Amino acid sequence: MRWARFEMHGKPTYGIVAGGAIQPGIGIPWESWEAADTKVPFTSVKLLPPVIPMTFYAMGLNYVEHVTLTAQRKGVPVNLPPKADVGYRAINALIAHGEPIIIPKDATEEVQYEAEIVVIIGKKAKHLTPKNALDHVFGYTIGNDVSERTWQAGDRTLWRAKNTDTFKPMGPWIETDVDLDKLVTRVRMNGKETIKFPTNNMHFGIVECLVAMSCYLTLHPGDMVWMGTEGHAPNMKHGDTCEIEIEGIGTLSNPVLREL
Amino acid sequence: MRWARFEMHGKPTYGIVAGGAIQPGIGIPWESWEAADTKVPFTSVKLLPPVIPMTFYAMGLNYVEHVTLTAQRKGVPVNLPPKADVGYRAINALIAHGEPIIIPKDATEEVQYEAEIVVIIGKKAKHLTPKNALDHVFGYTIGNDVSERTWQAGDRTLWRAKNTDTFKPMGPWIETDVDLDKLVTRVRMNGKETIKFPTNNMHFGIVECLVAMSCYLTLHPGDMVWMGTEGHAPNMKHGDTCEIEIEGIGTLSNPVLREL
Repeated sequence: MRWARFEMHGKPTYGIVAGGAIQPGIGIPWESWEAADTKVPFTSVKLLPPVIPMTFYAMGLNYVEHVTLTAQRKGVPVNLPPKADVGYRAINALIAHGEPIIIPKDATEEVQYEAEIVVIIGKKAKHLTPKNALDHVFGYTIGNDVSERTWQAGDRTLWRAKNTDTFKPMGPWIETDVDLDKLVTRVRMNGKETIKFPTNNMHFGIVECLVAMSCYLTLHPGDMVWMGTEGHAPNMKHGDTCEIEIEGIGTLSNPVLREL
Repeated sequence: MRWARFEMHGKPTYGIVAGGAIQPGIGIPWESWEAADTKVPFTSVKLLPPVIPMTFYAMGLNYVEHVTLTAQRKGVPVNLPPKADVGYRAINALIAHGEPIIIPKDATEEVQYEAEIVVIIGKKAKHLTPKNALDHVFGYTIGNDVSERTWQAGDRTLWRAKNTDTFKPMGPWIETDVDLDKLVTRVRMNGKETIKFPTNNMHFGIVECLVAMSCYLTLHPGDMVWMGTEGHAPNMKHGDTCEIEIEGIGTLSNPVLREL
């Protein structure tokens, strides 16, 4: 089932996407939700980021080739993280499918996409086990962890490198029925494929991360975990369109603009 | 004016604290708020963290003596950050005045307080200037940035060192009328003063931080920025009480328990 979050009568609304239409309703899908007696064409609605979480988690350095290529570019030894030490991103940076990624005028050319699967928590959880971890997941969506590489390398934290306004496109919707091992992530820049990788080929898998995190942290319904990316991306420039497809989930597409 | 957030009829409610009582009301103080026609004794309510922000910002290494002592303990040179690169903390860790800080059973003895002033944003803001930055602040409260030092030193991120459940006490309320230069922060462990410092004696001041952050980030009403701490703290252990007073704001007090 596909859950979109969109604007209706000026308010964020959840609805079920099927056959080119959205069935809106009242409530939050992972709490309680009641269908309204109407349908609206999917193309007529303004999509919103599929969730505004309490806490926005992000796994870094979580695919082997990405870690290897990043280390090679920096001229440092390849060190895969020994533990699933999760990081954070910020809500201000979230935008929806279709909205523009806006590169600040003082950013360098080194602004790159990172194609990620996003795990949406459905139930409050602490001390998860490998056996019950996925029972606490509501569904999955797609995230683009846009990064300005010179800020990432030079600042003490990732604040503007990864959390500048518009640097976190997410969507288009949440898919609840997913076979993780069958997923394939593809990125297309201006229609041309730039990378393709098995989505679930992570250094620390979803179950392992949720179990590790929930030893110390209570996960709340609506929290989300961005799972990291593979490979190395080209720079994005004004006028580009960046499309991330995860087969079985959907396609997240965003134009790129540079501030004048 | 002092705004407390507390539980009334099972719901988070904002009210004005004066003369030992709270005047509850409907709404959010920095949006719209209407007083109800009752008052409740302050001591009768269950306080909540004064705000659940969209994004939880935290300045690290923002007082000279704290940076110096931290470097000396690590045996590394003293390097004050050259720029106000802000960091992040997580909502799961927030607790209110009076609630217990719970040290996980596998934490070391090195669990320490960090006494901080917290800035609560009142108006949506981007590209703030030194002249208008403070006009966008709603008020101030107190935060305890509890930290497990071995995890802080050994993990790749600060996730469990600083964001373990209950590691972010905050409160007791938001004070809107504050003369920053007159504030003094004091910490008492079990009633005995362990540190005292001028609250506003920061490496990067509040105005400078808000201006720098808002070059790239939209600040939203209810967002908060924890401004860092001074000095070096002793370890906290089971049975202790940690009290942080900022004269002119209030006192945040929390007992310390260790998980069995």
